[in-house]
Amino acid sequence: MNELEILVRLNLSGMVGSSLLRRLLEHFELRRVPALSRRELQRVPGIGPLTSQAIVEAPDPGPEIELAARHQIEILPSTGPLYPPALRSLYDHPIVLYRRGATTEADALAVGIVGSRDCTDYGRRQALRFGQELARLRLTVVSGLARWIDTAAHRGALLAPEGRTIAFLGCGLLRTYPPENARLLDEICARGAAFSEFPLRSAPETVNFPRRNRLISGLTQGVLVVEAAEKSGALITADWALEQGRDVFCLPGSIESPLSRGCHRLIKQGAKLVEEPADILEEIPVFASLVEPRIPLTPLERGVLRRLTARPSTPESLTLLTRLPATSVEHALETLVTKGVVRRDRAGLYLTADK
Amino acid sequence: MNELEILVRLNLSGMVGSSLLRRLLEHFELRRVPALSRRELQRVPGIGPLTSQAIVEAPDPGPEIELAARHQIEILPSTGPLYPPALRSLYDHPIVLYRRGATTEADALAVGIVGSRDCTDYGRRQALRFGQELARLRLTVVSGLARWIDTAAHRGALLAPEGRTIAFLGCGLLRTYPPENARLLDEICARGAAFSEFPLRSAPETVNFPRRNRLISGLTQGVLVVEAAEKSGALITADWALEQGRDVFCLPGSIESPLSRGCHRLIKQGAKLVEEPADILEEIPVFASLVEPRIPLTPLERGVLRRLTARPSTPESLTLLTRLPATSVEHALETLVTKGVVRRDRAGLYLTADK
Repeated sequence: MNELEILVRLNLSGMVGSSLLRRLLEHFELRRVPALSRRELQRVPGIGPLTSQAIVEAPDPGPEIELAARHQIEILPSTGPLYPPALRSLYDHPIVLYRRGATTEADALAVGIVGSRDCTDYGRRQALRFGQELARLRLTVVSGLARWIDTAAHRGALLAPEGRTIAFLGCGLLRTYPPENARLLDEICARGAAFSEFPLRSAPETVNFPRRNRLISGLTQGVLVVEAAEKSGALITADWALEQGRDVFCLPGSIESPLSRGCHRLIKQGAKLVEEPADILEEIPVFASLVEPRIPLTPLERGVLRRLTARPSTPESLTLLTRLPATSVEHALETLVTKGVVRRDRAGLYLTADK
Repeated sequence: MNELEILVRLNLSGMVGSSLLRRLLEHFELRRVPALSRRELQRVPGIGPLTSQAIVEAPDPGPEIELAARHQIEILPSTGPLYPPALRSLYDHPIVLYRRGATTEADALAVGIVGSRDCTDYGRRQALRFGQELARLRLTVVSGLARWIDTAAHRGALLAPEGRTIAFLGCGLLRTYPPENARLLDEICARGAAFSEFPLRSAPETVNFPRRNRLISGLTQGVLVVEAAEKSGALITADWALEQGRDVFCLPGSIESPLSRGCHRLIKQGAKLVEEPADILEEIPVFASLVEPRIPLTPLERGVLRRLTARPSTPESLTLLTRLPATSVEHALETLVTKGVVRRDRAGLYLTADK
């Protein structure tokens, strides 16, 4: 078995995340793992009878890999170059991720939008609004494809021209949950991607969703909680965000609405009260400079800045990305450097000044 | 002229607060002030032609003092024992206060409730609720008798059995503004008091209200802003509260309501988001211990604690106030001391442990 096959097989066992894999590799080479006996596996701290049984009895990964290929689903090993770096930095990330659609460098700037499945018109309306406005500002909108709030957030992002959105599913990518969102999922994958850590045909088990939530927050700079009842899964996402060092943003609401209670509790605990997209942007270093009136930017500068990330870019790549004349891009880069928003590294490449 | 007459006369000039009076007394004895010429007055830094003219031309205080007496209105000089200590500690407090009704030691624990005159049903409903619940918990509800929010706050306090409420007016106490609140004002004065720093027949001039707001916040431990548009006078009260070191509490609301914008701005700046009366109580040291589950108290202990303030009380006075048997009060005091909520001073009197 090659590396991908071994990782898919371990993932099919349902018992191995990156944390256990790390310990496993302290004792054995990866290529030896498929041949290990239960007794050998149990030498690894944290692997007991159940885990060792699950690993030994995990099915042949061949059919799963073929099935993925047949459906244009990529399987990204956590060791590979396509695995999202933000997720790889999570303590216990999935050892493989299934991906339908595509991600781009632009997805490095992302905001999660989450909320209770029970929600009000207010919550749905604002999820749509924030989805659309944040996507228009070139932030990728990440959510969970669930009914109401998640759905509104994805739809909002799709309403923005070139808006990008990513869905993390709590089931395998060959299932659609909730079923009425099949069409929406197609649209999301055409303008972004759907991810899952669960094998392709996994059912949407209740236990999957809290796990899934850590990836929503993990991929983003911060998470906006639109509405959340006191025991909502959205609060789990907010807890993950805090643990991962991501920002937590909350929409306030009427104190008479049980669905705003979770948001109010988070605000009392220090989450940021949000009324406008600018409230989110100003917390994200690369976008903070866009929030007027701190540093007024021309539309041209703004267009160039939106394509810049913390990773150095050449003027040529920016010209390609912005579809602007090379001289305009060069001029904008010069003035952005003067305004302190952008800096040049030693190689003469441009990057955002905040990092 | 006696001291009260001189202070009333200076107050009638409309130009002398405690800050200017302090400087005046650095140069002259109070009894000499009525005889001073404009030229002599102008020796005092801060007294120019306008102020000196207003002082010299201020009317005889006799008729004002008689008028007050005829209407059972007391005039409290800032130097006298009846002047509220919390207001005397303000940097530029009124040199006299007119009072209709009565204040008691219980008013040392007070919360202001303020809001835009424009408001929603939500704001009125919550002002009534918080007025009633805070008054039930033995906090005196302080507001400004204005339409809607203020009115609802006062009415809420009056709904609580023995609930106390105080109104600060932006006009003289012989005027009622708004006129439809004449009956409400009578009820307030029967269960609390109305105060004004303005001469008895002063009209409700626009400039009076921001001045008046500093007294609302000044008399309280903190101010609850129920609803406030972006340029509401309620925000002025909140600013005064911050300047005076009082807490600022805010009700959140829909981000689609312009009347919650002021509250949201304050929360972003650090004001405390409030959903329940407990959110307010826990910031007020003497009441913090009541908020479950920090220190569980029996109903008896609670009844006794409610009557205790930062000023030492005898068990006898507490027996009178609580209308409980003396032995029960003594037992409750003992257990409250054990629980660390109450302490005895050197004279053996009881006071709250937080101060």
